[in-house]
Amino acid sequence: MPIVEAHILQGYSPTEKSRLSSALTDAIRFVVPAPDEAITVMLHEYPSEAYARGGQHRQPAPALPDPAQIVRDYLAAMEARDLDTAQGMLGDGFQMVFPATQPMTDLSELIAWSKGRYRFVKKTYDGFDAMHSGGVAVVYARGTLYGEWMDGTPFEGIRFIDRFEISGGKIVRQDVWNDMAEVRAK
Amino acid sequence: MPIVEAHILQGYSPTEKSRLSSALTDAIRFVVPAPDEAITVMLHEYPSEAYARGGQHRQPAPALPDPAQIVRDYLAAMEARDLDTAQGMLGDGFQMVFPATQPMTDLSELIAWSKGRYRFVKKTYDGFDAMHSGGVAVVYARGTLYGEWMDGTPFEGIRFIDRFEISGGKIVRQDVWNDMAEVRAK
Amino acid sequence: MPIVEAHILQGYSPTEKSRLSSALTDAIRFVVPAPDEAITVMLHEYPSEAYARGGQHRQPAPALPDPAQIVRDYLAAMEARDLDTAQGMLGDGFQMVFPATQPMTDLSELIAWSKGRYRFVKKTYDGFDAMHSGGVAVVYARGTLYGEWMDGTPFEGIRFIDRFEISGGKIVRQDVWNDMAEVRAK
Amino acid sequence: MPIVEAHILQGYSPTEKSRLSSALTDAIRFVVPAPDEAITVMLHEYPSEAYARGGQHRQPAPALPDPAQIVRDYLAAMEARDLDTAQGMLGDGFQMVFPATQPMTDLSELIAWSKGRYRFVKKTYDGFDAMHSGGVAVVYARGTLYGEWMDGTPFEGIRFIDRFEISGGKIVRQDVWNDMAEVRAK
Amino acid sequence: MPIVEAHILQGYSPTEKSRLSSALTDAIRFVVPAPDEAITVMLHEYPSEAYARGGQHRQPAPALPDPAQIVRDYLAAMEARDLDTAQGMLGDGFQMVFPATQPMTDLSELIAWSKGRYRFVKKTYDGFDAMHSGGVAVVYARGTLYGEWMDGTPFEGIRFIDRFEISGGKIVRQDVWNDMAEVRAK
Amino acid sequence: MPIVEAHILQGYSPTEKSRLSSALTDAIRFVVPAPDEAITVMLHEYPSEAYARGGQHRQPAPALPDPAQIVRDYLAAMEARDLDTAQGMLGDGFQMVFPATQPMTDLSELIAWSKGRYRFVKKTYDGFDAMHSGGVAVVYARGTLYGEWMDGTPFEGIRFIDRFEISGGKIVRQDVWNDMAEVRAK
Repeated sequence: MPIVEAHILQGYSPTEKSRLSSALTDAIRFVVPAPDEAITVMLHEYPSEAYARGGQHRQPAPALPDPAQIVRDYLAAMEARDLDTAQGMLGDGFQMVFPATQPMTDLSELIAWSKGRYRFVKKTYDGFDAMHSGGVAVVYARGTLYGEWMDGTPFEGIRFIDRFEISGGKIVRQDVWNDMAEVRAK
Repeated sequence: MPIVEAHILQGYSPTEKSRLSSALTDAIRFVVPAPDEAITVMLHEYPSEAYARGGQHRQPAPALPDPAQIVRDYLAAMEARDLDTAQGMLGDGFQMVFPATQPMTDLSELIAWSKGRYRFVKKTYDGFDAMHSGGVAVVYARGTLYGEWMDGTPFEGIRFIDRFEISGGKIVRQDVWNDMAEVRAK
Repeated sequence: MPIVEAHILQGYSPTEKSRLSSALTDAIRFVVPAPDEAITVMLHEYPSEAYARGGQHRQPAPALPDPAQIVRDYLAAMEARDLDTAQGMLGDGFQMVFPATQPMTDLSELIAWSKGRYRFVKKTYDGFDAMHSGGVAVVYARGTLYGEWMDGTPFEGIRFIDRFEISGGKIVRQDVWNDMAEVRAK
Repeated sequence: MPIVEAHILQGYSPTEKSRLSSALTDAIRFVVPAPDEAITVMLHEYPSEAYARGGQHRQPAPALPDPAQIVRDYLAAMEARDLDTAQGMLGDGFQMVFPATQPMTDLSELIAWSKGRYRFVKKTYDGFDAMHSGGVAVVYARGTLYGEWMDGTPFEGIRFIDRFEISGGKIVRQDVWNDMAEVRAK
Repeated sequence: MPIVEAHILQGYSPTEKSRLSSALTDAIRFVVPAPDEAITVMLHEYPSEAYARGGQHRQPAPALPDPAQIVRDYLAAMEARDLDTAQGMLGDGFQMVFPATQPMTDLSELIAWSKGRYRFVKKTYDGFDAMHSGGVAVVYARGTLYGEWMDGTPFEGIRFIDRFEISGGKIVRQDVWNDMAEVRAK
Repeated sequence: MPIVEAHILQGYSPTEKSRLSSALTDAIRFVVPAPDEAITVMLHEYPSEAYARGGQHRQPAPALPDPAQIVRDYLAAMEARDLDTAQGMLGDGFQMVFPATQPMTDLSELIAWSKGRYRFVKKTYDGFDAMHSGGVAVVYARGTLYGEWMDGTPFEGIRFIDRFEISGGKIVRQDVWNDMAEVRAK
């Protein structure tokens, strides 16, 4: 049954408004088990001249980019070993933790670390989850890895999950888990 | 700047309303980088007699339980090997996937599988993420494992992440990743 | 899809609020072919101290009585020949027109007119329609008549329709059509 | 005092919005005896991208045609004996009941039935009432008949009332009452 | 915390909407000590076809002119001895009271009265206050006077305050206080 | 036509809500010449649990006291020479300016200053104006003075106007103008 009215400044694109509608709809679904046809989201849009906070007219803050898309783009750049592009998507204080590694802060460290582990690895995605949590956007990407071990043996179907924190449109943290060691240990 | 009005039926507890307010606030934060003091959520509550859909007065659907709490309770029951309690929290069609295992559907399978791997294992939590995604509540729990290997050697600080899907207040899927094999392989 | 919010003063009974919700729902249905589950009506109720028009706090006007109920009560009183009760339900300037009669203003005229037509007549109702139209509440009652002609022959199933105008809770006009003459002419 | 806000999708014409405003105003008047200047109706209109039900953006359902206008057009076509036009305005399962007739389903039956009753008949309208009631639009047309009996004698001022049910823009039922037999019986 | 939604007809200029937003913001500040960033004003604007009072669509009343600007213009015209312009800004029944004078109704009276008091006088403004009070717009202008006494001695820094009542865009009353006599008496 | 909805936290008294309604009504009147019966103010009140800013539930800030009442009480205390009470109503940095005086900061200065001017003086009020302006509440009190000169001669009908600034419920500035010197100079 819940009906949501959100009041926003004019200037957001249809896609941004759709993302906002979806996020609000999911927020309702998270707490109230209403049937889908009973959850309505309506966005009131105001020109700057019809909206004032503290007596001051306001301009809309540009919408945050879709963090799931940022992660997709980053993972694609990494898979293509396009390190410049990937590096440009990282924010200040970026840290990444891979299975049984110390935190790394530079993509070159990661490349060095992975050198002795496999010839190449690629990802097949099963799904993404994204939300705002604890002050940042959090994105989970999960699926399976395929590629070749150092000896040329192919592998596939190895489960992985990556967790990203995005702040201000930049990736500030990446945590990676996967079953590579389990599989190799077999 | 966004201001959110949600219209709901009377009958939700203060805690449920807080959860709804938080979820709506995070939905806004997910898309619009407004300062916190500019994101306002207001809940209009209607007695049944003042709310009609299709001309019919409605009763509020009971709020969904907090899925993060369900996961905490389930993990605590598992850690205490209180299988009856844990089993009672599982929904129809429950499936769980552990590192390099086939999907299991019964907790006893899991117990049997873990028998040869460690004497015991316990969890220290670094954080939970929860959201509605793809028709279910999704909860991520992450942190580190400590315990004893089969030979009595203690271990600690092994990273893990669990992903749960909760539907209708029951856990219907659990996926687990951790660095155990990485650590043992060292 | 339409969602209706009506802002009213506190003080209306649940029944009155239901009548208002129904009327608003039907108003939407009259113009927009939305599925029923998509038409939501919500009533905001304000204590007098939180509602001001022209800077003056206001008291709620007592709800109008249900005009269909007024008509049912009036027709029941007439059928029971309880003329005092029926007369008390008529407003200033009351007028009634029966098949091929001049306008009558007093129930005794009607009784006199009907004297030579049948020994008694009673009504079976097929339905009522009620609405606000042209400054008054309009109620239609339709169904069939049964009773006895002057010679004692019974009759039944004779279609009738009555149209009433109600203003300020009083009946101010009654128009009657029926098939009595058609039936007698056969 | 009541103030009504209706939230609708963009795309309705000014006339359709006027019809909706009028219907909502009459819905209020039907229950609350507020002075006219205190009944305000405001329509919020949303582009599809700013309106979502169940997370899906929606297109506005085309407004229902004005049922009173449908009835006027139908009665004009019948009076002009333009049976093709009139027939095209009837919906599936159409039924009509005239004074002391069995239900008819085809306009040709009506023409046949009326053949022996008068040379022609035309209508002067005193008023129309229209509302949504019981799942359909109901329209009442009332006034007086004039024309010529079979013998060429003119008649006039014979009261009639027609009740129509309209569903999906088509007439599905017509009930007719009038004083013809009363008048002839005199 | 207060959030204000005002529903108005379309047709007001950005400046008029700013004036309305400011007035509403100050109305809140007058009663509730909320921090500025917590007072939001949002204006819903309706085309005439989406707004009905008493079932009638309405046109927006032209906004009242800014009374403080009217007063500034009037005082500038008076200072420039442009009596025609100033006279044109006065409404029916205009009255003015200067220190220890009887009420005057015509600007020529004022000119005559001031003749023996100073050669000329001009105003430096410290501030304006404006509000709606008691059915009229009230504007206060305060500051200091400078000029020359009749004997050619200059003066300056003499405090004054003018109070104006504006109705229908015209000045209908002016009350003036100042320290001229105090200063001269020294 | 304007309709104002203000959203506030629960906890304000009926009198405080009336003051807020009046201030909002006057804000509308200040800009739009709508007839009084067309200006509606409605206050939505939320319990703390149904209101969140930045995800935090909030408590209502206590309403500001009525500044016009503060001024009335202060002027009454001064007239009664109840300096302790009057002093207690002054805020930090209080300043007062009387006709042709330097700014004074202490009531005893005022008493000393007035000693040589009259035996006593009392006020008759013609009206008060109050508003929020420039970050403070501004109150104007105007009327006439009566009393006795030093030589025992009575006086009356001497116009005065006082301007007060109130911040945080305390008077922080008083400016006084009157015609005493004009009258004495005659």
